[in-house]
This record gives sequence, C-alpha cells and structure tokens, in this order.
Amino acid sequence: MEVIKSLENNKIKLWGKLNQKKYRDRYNLFIVQERHLIEEAIKANCLDTLIVREGVNNIFEVDCIYVSEAIIKKLSDNVSLNDYIAICKMVDYKVDNFKKVIILEKVQDPGNVGTIIRTAYSFGYDLVYLTEDSCDLYNQKTIQASQGAFFHIPVLRDKFENIISKVKEKGCKLIATDLENSNYLSKSKKVDKLAIMLGNEGQGLSKKAILTADERVKIEMDNFESLNVAIAAAILMYHYR
Amino acid sequence: MEVIKSLENNKIKLWGKLNQKKYRDRYNLFIVQERHLIEEAIKANCLDTLIVREGVNNIFEVDCIYVSEAIIKKLSDNVSLNDYIAICKMVDYKVDNFKKVIILEKVQDPGNVGTIIRTAYSFGYDLVYLTEDSCDLYNQKTIQASQGAFFHIPVLRDKFENIISKVKEKGCKLIATDLENSNYLSKSKKVDKLAIMLGNEGQGLSKKAILTADERVKIEMDNFESLNVAIAAAILMYHYR
Repeated sequence: MEVIKSLENNKIKLWGKLNQKKYRDRYNLFIVQERHLIEEAIKANCLDTLIVREGVNNIFEVDCIYVSEAIIKKLSDNVSLNDYIAICKMVDYKVDNFKKVIILEKVQDPGNVGTIIRTAYSFGYDLVYLTEDSCDLYNQKTIQASQGAFFHIPVLRDKFENIISKVKEKGCKLIATDLENSNYLSKSKKVDKLAIMLGNEGQGLSKKAILTADERVKIEMDNFESLNVAIAAAILMYHYR
Repeated sequence: MEVIKSLENNKIKLWGKLNQKKYRDRYNLFIVQERHLIEEAIKANCLDTLIVREGVNNIFEVDCIYVSEAIIKKLSDNVSLNDYIAICKMVDYKVDNFKKVIILEKVQDPGNVGTIIRTAYSFGYDLVYLTEDSCDLYNQKTIQASQGAFFHIPVLRDKFENIISKVKEKGCKLIATDLENSNYLSKSKKVDKLAIMLGNEGQGLSKKAILTADERVKIEMDNFESLNVAIAAAILMYHYR
C-alpha cells in the first residue's frame, strides 16, 4: 500500500499544478473530484491514478495511492473535504463521422460550456467543437457542469476556420443565432446534418461566423432580453434534435 | 460629500452582514454589484444607498456615499475591485393577475434559479414562485445569473401548499416533469393558463408535486441522461410560451 504524506513529493507537486490549463495541456492530465464522475472516468478508461484519503475505504475496483488530508486539500478545490480524487488522462476522441454538431465560438463560462456538452449528449448530438479561444474543457467547473458527458460525446478544440471546413466537408447545414435578418426558430426546417453555432456570452457570434452560416435563426421572445447561451443552445438543440 | 473610511462605521457593519440571508431578510436589503444591474435597480426604484469607491467618478444620476477601497472590498465578493456597490431594498412585487407561472420546488443552485428567472422574463411568463426551501433570490449568484430580470418579473416565496392553491384558484393547469407515466412534451397541448413545476437538482420534483399535477410531461431525449433543471425549464417554457 503506497502512502504519500509529503507535500514535496514529486507526484504531488506535478498533480498540484493541474489546476492550471498550461500544465494540464503539457501533461495531458486533469483532475476529477466527484465520485460518480470518477466512476465514469474509470469506465471510459481515462483513469491515470486514483488517490484516496488515508483512513478512507477504497470503494473503487482499481488500485489506489493513499495520501494525507493535507495533500487531498492541496489537490482539490472543493470546500468540503474529498475522500477521492482521480488523476485522469485526457480523452482520446475518435471521430469518424458526425451528423449533428455544436460549435461554440469563444464561449467563456465553464458552467455554460459544461452544460451545453451535457445537453448535447442528452439530445443525441455527435460532437461539440470549441474554438481555441473558448474556455477549457478540463476546468473543474466545466467538468462539474457537464456531469461527465464529455466521457461519452467527443469534444474537440480547433481554430474556427478548421472547424467550419470540416463541418462543411461533411455536408452539415450551418446554423447561426442572430437577431437580425433571421428566421424564427419554430419556422426553421429540421435537417439531417447540421452544425449549430453559438457565440460568446457578451457579444454573441462574430460577424464572420454569422456570414458563414447557411441559415440564421432567432428564438421567439416576448421581452427584448437575451437568453443565457446554454439556454439558447438547448432550445435550438431540442428543436433540431 | 460623505466619505466613510472606517470599517467600524455602523452602516458599513450592517451592510457587511448582507452577504448572509438572515440579515438580508431582517433588514429587507440586498447588495447589487454590477453596473448594469445597479442601473436596473435605480430604474426599479429599489436603490437604498449608492456606494462609490473614493477617487472614482459617480456615473449615476443619484447621490452617493464615498468609501475607502478596504470598505469596497469588505462589501463585495468579486475578485476584481468594484467601483460601485448598491445597497438595494427588496422588491415589493404587485401581483394581481397571472396566466403563466413557474414553480420551483427546492431548487438549490443560485445559478439555476437566476437563469430560470431570466428565461421566464424573456418568454413573457408572469410570475416565478419559489418554495421556502429553494435558494434565496437575493444571493449574489442568483442576482448575477438572473441579469436583473427579477426587477421586471415578480418572484414570490411561499409554502408549496399555498403556491398550489393560489395557482389552482387562478385556473392554471399544473404541469410536472416526470419520466414515468408522462406524455412527450412535443405532444402536450398549449394552454392559456399554466403553471410549470420544476424540482430539486438531485431528486427532481417531490412525489406530492407530481401527484398534484394535471399533466405530467417528459422532454424527449436520445440518451438516458437528465438535463440541468434550468435547461429543462427553458425547453418547457419555450414550448408553452
């Protein structure tokens, strides 16, 4: 039974850096804290190391490393004390084919990105694309809001231009949300292959994204207020599901 | 020009307590931190005191109190330094009549409650009811997620039983989300007067809420996953708008 008690241990020092995106990207590792998400990580074959707080029973059917309470605290960003922490390998998504795609252009809030991934999985979409300037998939808040859906649905990060060319190559109809020169969503026809683009929380989609679209739609609203981007995404995904 | 520099000042001590629900309820006051929300508060006649950081220009057309940086920090929970903070009076909602209502039963996450209020306002709903065990409207995260929509749409807190009897009295059809013995949402008829019930993030609606409903509906999903409650709420509200 391996027990680590020193905060100066090299593994702990490395894992402690995984709350920063640059180190997650460097080591291709990220941290998962909730029990049901750790189960998902194990099923998805993404577990690198299971960490268990000393004195706690390992309820998972995999080997683990025990650590002191101080180390668990260092590795977690929860207020309450974790019993388990999983160091996970980034998911190696296989994407051969897709019909229904979500494209997030510069969406910044991890809660929004995670919620959109969760919704996309629920509604049977095949793929979520993030532009390079969108927030990180492996941020704790994104993981939490996604409820682990990214273990089931591929999430890829690429330059906007590359995303558009891949999606067009597959014959997907590109749909943009825009308040001007757009059709009401309820009048928009459902198609077999489509890519729904959603933009930044403050500014919406960029002009280039809107100009690239095959169709522009707006969600019918009674009061001239904007919707949260995860809400708009869900209403569109449900309509075109 | 009034300037407060002491953290021991009685007003500052009182306002400093407003991050706790019990003091907000005791004094009927709450804190608003974002500039556009402060504007909404002024328009809605809810401003009690405008607080401006010393050295910053008061951009609002109302009187203010200047305070030191240390005081601004004490009163705000933002990481970045605020220029303005508004102490606001709780909204005195007038609700004479309503047709379309949202009922949140024990919804706990302030981001979810705020987002649902924002969506309800956008889709022209008349009223949001919170059961007493739902999270507080005047929590910073609720306010932020609502984007100030609660200045426009009434949000009332009451016991579940009282809410149901008021809603029935008005002739609203009570709709519950439930995965069992329920109709698909897309097949559910739109009605003039309705109340949509949504439940706790973990457990969903209580059994008593489901039994009270006139109709039970489920949102069509491809994968057996639950949706975030604010997402489910939005899809229902859009359908029945």
